[in-house]
Amino acid sequence: MIIMRKGASREEITSVVNDLKAHGLGADVSTGEIRTVIGIIGDETKISATHLETLPGVKEVRLIETPYKLINREYSTLFDGKAESRIVKIGKVEIGSARPVFMAGPCAIESKDQLMTIAEGVKSAGAHILRGGVFKPRSSVHSFQGLGSTDESAREALGWLREAGDKYDMPVVTEVRGESQVKIVAEYADVLQVGSRNMYNQDLLIQVARTGKPVLLKRHFGASIEEFLSFAEYLAASGNKDIILCERGIVPVGRGKSFTRYTLDLQAVPVVQKETYLPIIVDPSHAAGRRDLVMTMSLAAIAAGASGLEIEVHHNAKEARCDGQQMITVSEMGYLIEACRRLSESLQPFRMTGMGDKCIN
Amino acid sequence: MIIMRKGASREEITSVVNDLKAHGLGADVSTGEIRTVIGIIGDETKISATHLETLPGVKEVRLIETPYKLINREYSTLFDGKAESRIVKIGKVEIGSARPVFMAGPCAIESKDQLMTIAEGVKSAGAHILRGGVFKPRSSVHSFQGLGSTDESAREALGWLREAGDKYDMPVVTEVRGESQVKIVAEYADVLQVGSRNMYNQDLLIQVARTGKPVLLKRHFGASIEEFLSFAEYLAASGNKDIILCERGIVPVGRGKSFTRYTLDLQAVPVVQKETYLPIIVDPSHAAGRRDLVMTMSLAAIAAGASGLEIEVHHNAKEARCDGQQMITVSEMGYLIEACRRLSESLQPFRMTGMGDKCIN
Amino acid sequence: MIIMRKGASREEITSVVNDLKAHGLGADVSTGEIRTVIGIIGDETKISATHLETLPGVKEVRLIETPYKLINREYSTLFDGKAESRIVKIGKVEIGSARPVFMAGPCAIESKDQLMTIAEGVKSAGAHILRGGVFKPRSSVHSFQGLGSTDESAREALGWLREAGDKYDMPVVTEVRGESQVKIVAEYADVLQVGSRNMYNQDLLIQVARTGKPVLLKRHFGASIEEFLSFAEYLAASGNKDIILCERGIVPVGRGKSFTRYTLDLQAVPVVQKETYLPIIVDPSHAAGRRDLVMTMSLAAIAAGASGLEIEVHHNAKEARCDGQQMITVSEMGYLIEACRRLSESLQPFRMTGMGDKCIN
Amino acid sequence: MIIMRKGASREEITSVVNDLKAHGLGADVSTGEIRTVIGIIGDETKISATHLETLPGVKEVRLIETPYKLINREYSTLFDGKAESRIVKIGKVEIGSARPVFMAGPCAIESKDQLMTIAEGVKSAGAHILRGGVFKPRSSVHSFQGLGSTDESAREALGWLREAGDKYDMPVVTEVRGESQVKIVAEYADVLQVGSRNMYNQDLLIQVARTGKPVLLKRHFGASIEEFLSFAEYLAASGNKDIILCERGIVPVGRGKSFTRYTLDLQAVPVVQKETYLPIIVDPSHAAGRRDLVMTMSLAAIAAGASGLEIEVHHNAKEARCDGQQMITVSEMGYLIEACRRLSESLQPFRMTGMGDKCIN
Repeated sequence: MIIMRKGASREEITSVVNDLKAHGLGADVSTGEIRTVIGIIGDETKISATHLETLPGVKEVRLIETPYKLINREYSTLFDGKAESRIVKIGKVEIGSARPVFMAGPCAIESKDQLMTIAEGVKSAGAHILRGGVFKPRSSVHSFQGLGSTDESAREALGWLREAGDKYDMPVVTEVRGESQVKIVAEYADVLQVGSRNMYNQDLLIQVARTGKPVLLKRHFGASIEEFLSFAEYLAASGNKDIILCERGIVPVGRGKSFTRYTLDLQAVPVVQKETYLPIIVDPSHAAGRRDLVMTMSLAAIAAGASGLEIEVHHNAKEARCDGQQMITVSEMGYLIEACRRLSESLQPFRMTGMGDKCIN
Repeated sequence: MIIMRKGASREEITSVVNDLKAHGLGADVSTGEIRTVIGIIGDETKISATHLETLPGVKEVRLIETPYKLINREYSTLFDGKAESRIVKIGKVEIGSARPVFMAGPCAIESKDQLMTIAEGVKSAGAHILRGGVFKPRSSVHSFQGLGSTDESAREALGWLREAGDKYDMPVVTEVRGESQVKIVAEYADVLQVGSRNMYNQDLLIQVARTGKPVLLKRHFGASIEEFLSFAEYLAASGNKDIILCERGIVPVGRGKSFTRYTLDLQAVPVVQKETYLPIIVDPSHAAGRRDLVMTMSLAAIAAGASGLEIEVHHNAKEARCDGQQMITVSEMGYLIEACRRLSESLQPFRMTGMGDKCIN
Repeated sequence: MIIMRKGASREEITSVVNDLKAHGLGADVSTGEIRTVIGIIGDETKISATHLETLPGVKEVRLIETPYKLINREYSTLFDGKAESRIVKIGKVEIGSARPVFMAGPCAIESKDQLMTIAEGVKSAGAHILRGGVFKPRSSVHSFQGLGSTDESAREALGWLREAGDKYDMPVVTEVRGESQVKIVAEYADVLQVGSRNMYNQDLLIQVARTGKPVLLKRHFGASIEEFLSFAEYLAASGNKDIILCERGIVPVGRGKSFTRYTLDLQAVPVVQKETYLPIIVDPSHAAGRRDLVMTMSLAAIAAGASGLEIEVHHNAKEARCDGQQMITVSEMGYLIEACRRLSESLQPFRMTGMGDKCIN
Repeated sequence: MIIMRKGASREEITSVVNDLKAHGLGADVSTGEIRTVIGIIGDETKISATHLETLPGVKEVRLIETPYKLINREYSTLFDGKAESRIVKIGKVEIGSARPVFMAGPCAIESKDQLMTIAEGVKSAGAHILRGGVFKPRSSVHSFQGLGSTDESAREALGWLREAGDKYDMPVVTEVRGESQVKIVAEYADVLQVGSRNMYNQDLLIQVARTGKPVLLKRHFGASIEEFLSFAEYLAASGNKDIILCERGIVPVGRGKSFTRYTLDLQAVPVVQKETYLPIIVDPSHAAGRRDLVMTMSLAAIAAGASGLEIEVHHNAKEARCDGQQMITVSEMGYLIEACRRLSESLQPFRMTGMGDKCIN
């Protein structure tokens, strides 16, 4: 981190950035209420701190060892003087504020009718953002892969998603499964989702970040939190800090029945909030893999401080072509949102006191 | 399971039990509102269902494959006609009702003063049960092992615990680490805790169960839920169904920093409630291993439906001889209880409707 | 699986394939010594077995539930009448025979000099295939990402690799990290490696398979063996069965020091050999993450029946820009190959008897 | 560690030990070829190094942070001047030398006939030590628990084991499952086995160690290597260094079929050998849980440097009352031993050169 003097001029800043470039390094320039800080992107050992400190306008240079620097909570304190959390704005929806955000919709888009029916339902249930999969990541090549299997059907399905979002006034989120889909998805969607399986896919992350659209990054089910944040850093280092992190369960451990598909690691919520300034949401549907745990674990996630939930909803789950056993109904979704809101409100007084700051994270 | 006819006589029941004994099997006789059901303890293949069905008073025989039969929720429906959850009573405290129970106290009892100070504090904070370790399980033989290292100091420390419980009107819970400690602990404590490391210790479980005192059984950090319940079954098969289960975190998975000592598996709460009729509580202190997550994860645990919490509290955590970094203060404990109660109350309307039954577990 | 009658005509086969296509399904036609078998690619529920059995030339239809059908060992017995293992040929090198194959080279290609020096060294040490990374997957965006960061430097580095392979008469293998690199890597390399982090990347797998080049697929560190094989199936379903599987370690479990980067799961070797007809090799360098275990674990891998090893070798590990701590020297590599060969030969008599068939896998 | 001067007198040593005792600490006195070293048992912060260095005969004090000090390879170099591995002697059998030791026998002793038949078989197959379970740890209370369920049948079964061992000239090993069994097992067995589930059972470890008999300690399936060694330290701190460690698999990770009961972590073999001076063996039977992997993984274990194997053998596995699916036959055992010996011999030249020292661990 290169901390500039208060009032450092635009020329001084540019000159530092150029110096970094000349050393094969990138720069993340953040100007806050107090001052400008320049985060170094790339291998810091290529350049000497002593050299940087001689440049005009530079106050101090701090080399940080962690693989996630640009999304680090500490970083934001340097230029803003306080540990502000980031609020990611998607149209009128704000993720990261005190009010939990609900994303809902089918696992996979199957037809226009199906999508419109569900969209209308989740809107009236109180959801803010509509989700629907076109490019489905699947464990078996022999399973239904989503409507994205041809370019034509992909465009058609993405078009329905856009139309549903517009009609019911909800921004839309959908997954980008591979690099070749980035362009087309960015044309239609408001938020680009990178699924759990692609969390380590740095080439995809870089391309998704460059679209400039907000990115919803799910933790890989085999990743430690440190790795999760290290890959979120790829997004930030590509110039995009509109990042929403998502905990969706990690691989089960142990011999014998686990009763759920994955282990939902809710401690990740306060840990990520302490380590970074980014909002984190929770996906209880994929973690449980069974609908009868979704409501309970949604409540637990909101209690843990999650900024929102992503939930799979279907009007007719038994006939769903994908993940039917974990989708809840539209009326259950309404009930869930209502319960989560009450819970969230009941905790407001505790989150706002000084003591709450220390205690409730 | 041997389902007796309605109105089966005492003689008929005894005769079935004796028949089982003659085959080297044990019997768990449960008489409910509807009828009597006899659970077979031991290897069912030793006896034929056809034979059992010829015995007087027997209505039907159902062989169940699961390793946990006596604590199975289904089992209780057979004689009570409804899936009643069990409420474990410890003096005036009830675990398993809608009202969450708070157990609090120091990791290890260090002195009478320390214990009395903390006991007074947690009582006024609203805790129901006092905890305090005498026989400490430790990863290193070179660490402080608790005051239980000699028989004399063990009795002394257990006496303080009893005195503190009596003085502040709280039942007391403490860990039995080895078989040779069962007798002495049962003399002083109201609840016998079997720690995570001893979950697989079947000899200890049998002896603890036989004291007749309620048992608090913690999930091993490497155990699947199926294994957890299979070992709780050892308690029930030894004639003791006053079992309180406790989730306290499982081994972390993945490479890189995990930021917590264990992964708290809150999905275990609703899963255990669906599989068995036993109450389950949560210990967020050991899962996190750091005090700044305890409040947040307590709230998440209550939201997930936990019947209570076990929390480590110290009046002077920095000087604690064990686990200092995860203990919270007395005033934080009061704050935590207050927040958990509000949360619990805010969810009551949702838990009580018919829909909630399906949704909130 | 559609089992054709002996002597089914080309027209009959084509007609079945067309029928599948009409139902939106793909076909994998395998003609062996006994008969032709047609594997169905895609969701089998779209078509009825009864219908298929009425088609001319069809003897029998077997619907298989497993997500890996085309690489299943059982599948190959249907048309060949015996459970033949597949030998993947790369120039003169055969992977899957009794003779272990050694792939060696630097983690990352750093310069032409570095690569040529190591290539000469590993050739004289007895290696068969040269490895060298151009597109490096890295946990931190701030670490050296390989020479593949620009198109120009990527082509230059790939050219050196090709040149070194030709000069020292070794086929070359290198990793394809993203979809946009498939074309360029296929121009230069003999084997395309899909790294652990991309195992779940189905879009990449499909594109890599379609190049027609042999593919080296590494198991993801969070994947069960079932998932590993399910994703290898993506390659086969894309028409490429020249698949070499590779075990390289899974995420460590437990609290406290693990002493290695990953847990090397050598049971995967015989399990994969029983489940599929594909060869499997082992990468002990990444599993251990430290050079002093590489020799020992190489021996263990060969004893477990691995068809080969992929080892990181450097002439000057201390100055390596990536993974220096796990690379061994050229002379250690020679020593390792010599020891592995002796071990492999000492086990030949046991692997070849009838009893060995049952016992040594 | 308190390093005494060369030629320190007996009085000086006793005086240091007494000083430690006065501070509530224990002492492990090791006198080697070079000098005497005194390991401190307990919490070193209770005493000051400066004070210790003033005591007569003391040369130097080194405080070591690791939870395993007394079994640390470094410790032994202090008094012997070289990193000697420990050879545990059980009658004529030596564990820890270049020659692998084979322990074989049934999972559970079922009858005298069964045991004698198997004992004769494994002896002629080349086994060195006879194993057989009397106190069986079981996941389900409803499964066969071994003949140890009553005191009388336990003594009878242990008597057969002793008799079989004497008749066929093999030392015998059997598991102690609970504290109350320590005395009786020590009367009959030559080696006391502490099973995987009891690795964390410090009370049992202390009592087992105090019998003075060699102890076979299995790694818990949820334990890191650091934890494994920390609990082995409990044995050494109780005055018993005749410790044989055993790797037997850790909990599987991931979603989907794992195909084996546990993940066999063979990297543990060289890691343990580097960290401590204790011998380590491998149990492939429990790791795999299926007999068709036992031979292959035995070879891999020996190649990894294991000092021996513990294998479950039965003359009629299909009728075995426990673990039938993983026991191999007597003739397979003979075949396995023969193959392991050849493999071990083929590697001798590599293990003995200077280079091998660095490379093969």
